Amino acid sequence: MTGRLDVVGLGPGGPAQITGEARAALEAATDLFGYAPYLARLTLAPSQMAHASGNREELARANAALALAASGRRVALVSGGDPGVFAMAAAVCEAIEAGPQDWRRLEVAMVPGVTAMLAVAARCGAPLGHDFCALSLSDNLKPWETVEARLRAAAGAGFVIALYNPVSRARPWQLGRAFDVLREALPAATAVVFGRAAGRADERIAVVPLAEADAGLADMATCVIVGSAATRLVARGTLPPLVYTPRSAASAAR
Amino acid sequence: MTGRLDVVGLGPGGPAQITGEARAALEAATDLFGYAPYLARLTLAPSQMAHASGNREELARANAALALAASGRRVALVSGGDPGVFAMAAAVCEAIEAGPQDWRRLEVAMVPGVTAMLAVAARCGAPLGHDFCALSLSDNLKPWETVEARLRAAAGAGFVIALYNPVSRARPWQLGRAFDVLREALPAATAVVFGRAAGRADERIAVVPLAEADAGLADMATCVIVGSAATRLVARGTLPPLVYTPRSAASAAR
Repeated sequence: MTGRLDVVGLGPGGPAQITGEARAALEAATDLFGYAPYLARLTLAPSQMAHASGNREELARANAALALAASGRRVALVSGGDPGVFAMAAAVCEAIEAGPQDWRRLEVAMVPGVTAMLAVAARCGAPLGHDFCALSLSDNLKPWETVEARLRAAAGAGFVIALYNPVSRARPWQLGRAFDVLREALPAATAVVFGRAAGRADERIAVVPLAEADAGLADMATCVIVGSAATRLVARGTLPPLVYTPRSAASAAR
Repeated sequence: MTGRLDVVGLGPGGPAQITGEARAALEAATDLFGYAPYLARLTLAPSQMAHASGNREELARANAALALAASGRRVALVSGGDPGVFAMAAAVCEAIEAGPQDWRRLEVAMVPGVTAMLAVAARCGAPLGHDFCALSLSDNLKPWETVEARLRAAAGAGFVIALYNPVSRARPWQLGRAFDVLREALPAATAVVFGRAAGRADERIAVVPLAEADAGLADMATCVIVGSAATRLVARGTLPPLVYTPRSAASAAR
């Protein structure tokens, strides 16, 4: 089998946030698949074919990319951030498991990138400086009770929590409900970071105490980081405050 | 204040895994601080000063980098992986909080990178494809009881678990004990990935069931990913199996 599929992480969005390895995989591709706004970030060579698709068509997109790679093409399937974090890599694995046997002989490589929580954390200090978790708030693919149970377990155990997919048109109330659950487990002053488009021209970073965290501050492109009781703020006069979680749990405020 | 400090993530190790933004920050620096093996990865210009230090001197290194930046130099402090994940960004924030007031007026930027768990996950499929946490096994800076409580909370709630700092000469038994704790909470067949130097020439990736997970498979440069009960293996004949956690919790094996 001569084709190949690279599942490529574009990082949080700015062209300077892509790794060299990812750029090389994009340049080597004959065909590029992806959610239309991600493909629109790239400049393709005239010989390269773009196959754009909608936001909710992940499995169909993975199947189409695999089928074309199996036919002998060199295919790149692009993902925002890192493909392994709430993105295309798992969809590709699902498609291979369910697909024709010859897809299992295909050369497939995941090319990592900077995922949203790392970019948002970098813009405000080091909120992920100690143990943390990443949790998707979407209840399209898991029951909402599971989301709440995970929020309670993570906050109760002292993990900082990065929330992916916090809101969408079809999921308007979940983030507000998540804040309510977290307010039962964490101090009112716990720092919450709303990070949108980190590192891009339209970047917006807001830091508020959990007591005042309002779901209206988030949209589909936002990653929300909820601190632990140990997370600290360092005021810096005219510069934005630093938000960080100490490396030592002994120095925790809790 | 004219100096500046960039805290720069080098990614998992290969030169192609650095972002353009990180490379630019390294090139613009007059002085570079870091753990000696990380600095050794870089090619510096003759005008650039290298300030190498040992592994355990994080706070001293952060203080030295801040002091030099405050004196007007443009300083890069390098970190393996991402500086915000069990690395130098939190040490810098701690140093700023405890240091002289003028350090709070200094321009400080964290430049994100690909952290180890993302690189290891990419090399074996998509084990972090659904909710997951990252936990340092070091009990130098937190009580071991806290580590065990977090392991139990994370495994019980269905998070995949990435273990950083799994072993060191001074911490020989912690990883074995962590596997014992996890075997109480997870099925014997749960996939465990040992990923060492992902993306580098000396890379070593091993996938074993939790029942057979042996701490001897890890060293200081290893990131260990313990699946959830939903994590799946896809056999691929002569190719290594894919390890992935489905996007949908409804399709979980549990």
